[in-house]
Amino acid sequence: MSFVIPALDKTATPVIQQRINLKTKPAGALGLLETLALQLALIQSKSRLSLNKPVLLIFAADHGINNHGLSIAPSEVTQQMVSNFLAGGAAANCFCRTNGIELFVVDAGILKPLPDATGVIQQSLGCGTADFSQGPAMSLAQVEAGLTFGRHVANQHIVAGCDLLLLGEMGIANTSSAAALLAAATDLPVETCVGRGTGISDEQFQLKLALIKQALQRPYAKDPQSILAEFGGFEIVQLCGAILGAAEMQKPVLIDGFIVSVAALLACQMAPDCRDYLIFAHKGAEAGHKAVLKALDAAVLLDLGLRLGEGSGAALAVPLLKAAISFYNDMASFADAGVTQVAETGASQ
Amino acid sequence: MSFVIPALDKTATPVIQQRINLKTKPAGALGLLETLALQLALIQSKSRLSLNKPVLLIFAADHGINNHGLSIAPSEVTQQMVSNFLAGGAAANCFCRTNGIELFVVDAGILKPLPDATGVIQQSLGCGTADFSQGPAMSLAQVEAGLTFGRHVANQHIVAGCDLLLLGEMGIANTSSAAALLAAATDLPVETCVGRGTGISDEQFQLKLALIKQALQRPYAKDPQSILAEFGGFEIVQLCGAILGAAEMQKPVLIDGFIVSVAALLACQMAPDCRDYLIFAHKGAEAGHKAVLKALDAAVLLDLGLRLGEGSGAALAVPLLKAAISFYNDMASFADAGVTQVAETGASQ
Repeated sequence: MSFVIPALDKTATPVIQQRINLKTKPAGALGLLETLALQLALIQSKSRLSLNKPVLLIFAADHGINNHGLSIAPSEVTQQMVSNFLAGGAAANCFCRTNGIELFVVDAGILKPLPDATGVIQQSLGCGTADFSQGPAMSLAQVEAGLTFGRHVANQHIVAGCDLLLLGEMGIANTSSAAALLAAATDLPVETCVGRGTGISDEQFQLKLALIKQALQRPYAKDPQSILAEFGGFEIVQLCGAILGAAEMQKPVLIDGFIVSVAALLACQMAPDCRDYLIFAHKGAEAGHKAVLKALDAAVLLDLGLRLGEGSGAALAVPLLKAAISFYNDMASFADAGVTQVAETGASQ
Repeated sequence: MSFVIPALDKTATPVIQQRINLKTKPAGALGLLETLALQLALIQSKSRLSLNKPVLLIFAADHGINNHGLSIAPSEVTQQMVSNFLAGGAAANCFCRTNGIELFVVDAGILKPLPDATGVIQQSLGCGTADFSQGPAMSLAQVEAGLTFGRHVANQHIVAGCDLLLLGEMGIANTSSAAALLAAATDLPVETCVGRGTGISDEQFQLKLALIKQALQRPYAKDPQSILAEFGGFEIVQLCGAILGAAEMQKPVLIDGFIVSVAALLACQMAPDCRDYLIFAHKGAEAGHKAVLKALDAAVLLDLGLRLGEGSGAALAVPLLKAAISFYNDMASFADAGVTQVAETGASQ
């Protein structure tokens, strides 16, 4: 499968930057919000920026590697949490409600599928991946299918008017999969990539590290699709597809935590031009998250010590996008407001 | 003047913490939002937390020290920006609009007062402070009057149903005043306290440093009121009064940037129990901001490289308070959602 991502046209940068600099504030005084406004203005390429119908897609799947008990939770918690999302009871639901975001849950491959009537979007690649410490987590055909599924669901929402796609995930033991993917995709030391997930014991951590190290020693092809087949989760593959699918349609994607960031890294390896459409919501507590953000040269909007996933961090960052859009659209210029503009470096307070 | 701040009753901490821990997430997985929910639950002491009628008060004043040209902007920009706030054109207005916050502007002592008809709240202590490099910025009587004014306007809004007070400021050269206050109140080296405001030249910076050092060498009483009289700004004094006035009525106060944080430090020195009612919105780019946050042992919600003041950072942080309240009020417990609770340290993802 190939994705054709339109390179972001940056020729308007000086014009946009000048508009930002003429707002009634010292130049640069809104920090990261100015960078964000520039990025959104380049992507949307219109005079008044918009944030219509933001949608959070949570991709859920199970992981064969959890046969080794690499998480505090049993795999059945994935399905239980999917039900919790569908019932509106999880953190991601709360944050979506307070910030005006619509939430959808995708079964990308949980152990025990839920009935259609629950409202889950059915695009399962199987009932959990194979144990990647023993062999490939999935086939290349499953990777292809997952990319297609992810692209499809992203495209559907964009066609329906979604201006901003938020991505989240749920999958017991998926930090193991993400850590292996990160190590394989970057040649970073495994130790840099593996963390404690949501709080495993020393013993579990040593086992997690050993299994991932062992898995990485077998021969495998180094292209992103092969790496995904080898170590991936079904949700991570579909996240890649959704990222690429949104970038294809030139829509910004708000990336959540460690797992979604690893999906973003692989998406950027498949199609480097997608990087310009990505916004990174937060830096989580998981060890590998810092490493993947560095590999992506990503500045983050929030640093709250989150370690939940679900797209919770992405949902929390949406008001900052709204704020960036608001100042870009509506803040007065020096001329509008009759405020003395004092120097290139701006007014002082 | 004395403020009687009710010490925050923390006996409910274990009950509140248990409620947070039983939500469907690993314990601690919402990071700082959990700390915030605990603080708000202790302050509000009710089962469903609320955030009604949040109000941003921007206190504006001018500074005699700017006779030396310590800012890139001339002092007239203070009044111009006050007009900009009243017309709805500043960054703070944009962020208040997107986040549902009502904004009020207080003339605490700008050079040229604006007519009543503009809607500014008139509680001026004078047309700018005296130049504190030459002698006290104001009299102790002005400090007393300013504390009363600040308390009064805070109380008025709280009586009208405001659950959360946001504080901001506008005053050309007020980073000079705040830096001197911080050095005087903490015995920190002046170099740690003085920054470049919104981007002054090397020459201006050296002059700023020299004038502050010189001012700090004259003898002055070390109590907070005397320090305020010596180096204060009229807006900073009123900010202290507003902080203490809100804490008196057991309402949380959302602190903005460097200047408001220095006011908070002095308020805490006057009445240490007010500390428990303070929430720190962000860490700004100004050098002294880190130092004052450390002196207050304050964790911040945002770190966006802001250096604007106006309460802009406080306004940006409000959605995080809403999110904390939302998960505390409405997120399902393990029992509610039928999710397996796996260990003290929580479920994993």
